[in-house]
Amino acid sequence: MTARLTVLSGPSGVGKSTVVQGLRAARPDVWLSVSATTRRPRPGETHGVNYFFVDHAEFARMVEHGELLEYAEFAGNFYGTPRRPVIERLEAGVAVLLEIELQGARQVRASMPEALLVFLAPPSWDELVRRLVGRGTEPAEVIARRLETAKVELAAESEFDATVVNASVEGAVASLLDLMGLHAPGDPAAGS
Amino acid sequence: MTARLTVLSGPSGVGKSTVVQGLRAARPDVWLSVSATTRRPRPGETHGVNYFFVDHAEFARMVEHGELLEYAEFAGNFYGTPRRPVIERLEAGVAVLLEIELQGARQVRASMPEALLVFLAPPSWDELVRRLVGRGTEPAEVIARRLETAKVELAAESEFDATVVNASVEGAVASLLDLMGLHAPGDPAAGS
Repeated sequence: MTARLTVLSGPSGVGKSTVVQGLRAARPDVWLSVSATTRRPRPGETHGVNYFFVDHAEFARMVEHGELLEYAEFAGNFYGTPRRPVIERLEAGVAVLLEIELQGARQVRASMPEALLVFLAPPSWDELVRRLVGRGTEPAEVIARRLETAKVELAAESEFDATVVNASVEGAVASLLDLMGLHAPGDPAAGS
Repeated sequence: MTARLTVLSGPSGVGKSTVVQGLRAARPDVWLSVSATTRRPRPGETHGVNYFFVDHAEFARMVEHGELLEYAEFAGNFYGTPRRPVIERLEAGVAVLLEIELQGARQVRASMPEALLVFLAPPSWDELVRRLVGRGTEPAEVIARRLETAKVELAAESEFDATVVNASVEGAVASLLDLMGLHAPGDPAAGS
């Protein structure tokens, strides 16, 4: 049976990648899509694991041939989701999770309307502010701009199919697995 | 009769706004959509003419209520197209033209599949390079990055319904009017 694509998105600073790491630990059988990017690898990053590192000519070729499910530019670098690996796994019945930024999620809505779009929300505005302000080492203007951006990003929740509140990583992972129709290991219903 | 929305997009530096100005001069009856933005007005810009200048709270409200046909963030500012004015004019049979960046165009494809997406292309790669390099007063790294980005932006042509080559403004305006099913003034077919 063809599986359903799940997209996890949400505002900057909400903790998307921490929740994805938690889900990966709980259910290693869920396949996490690997993005292609034109940015240079950072120390410790591995090609094919963290990203597919490609040059702009190769990225342009993928765009031209419609090989990306979604793509976007951030600060001069391009990021995109190769379509074929996702489709192949879904067709093989493997659950696929895609963690992307909000604008990418809106593109997936267009290119794959049957995908489940999940919005990861902070437990409260104050908690998001706490995370975005961080250690308070940045200029007040930078922080103010980030909070203004967060306001708009939070409003995008209405474009999503479901919301998971990230009050605790365990709770968010459990809710996400639930939405995906999967069970956490140790869950009494896991064998059913 | 309901009119069709035309979207003009293309790589940075290709001359989109010059072509739009030319079209506005030739056919003042074509309605140009006015974007909402969170960025501050520049000297000479008028609210409601160049942009609708709104704060982040108001922009967030529009996002939340699905009032934008497309929106995107660039360098910390949000830009979006209010949906209702576009729909109202189209329903009144008025031709509407929307000049937006590539990622906005891809969103319109999703939210209004019947729109005509026109890609404005440079006459040649060398000509685009000439425009992007400009007066050569910027650091070589900035220029190099801009050219890399342009490569990917050019590849997006394949996502569009039609291409207009911007060899001359007059020629591009004529081709665009033609695609829109309109005539330029002085055109022998204009009275038909």
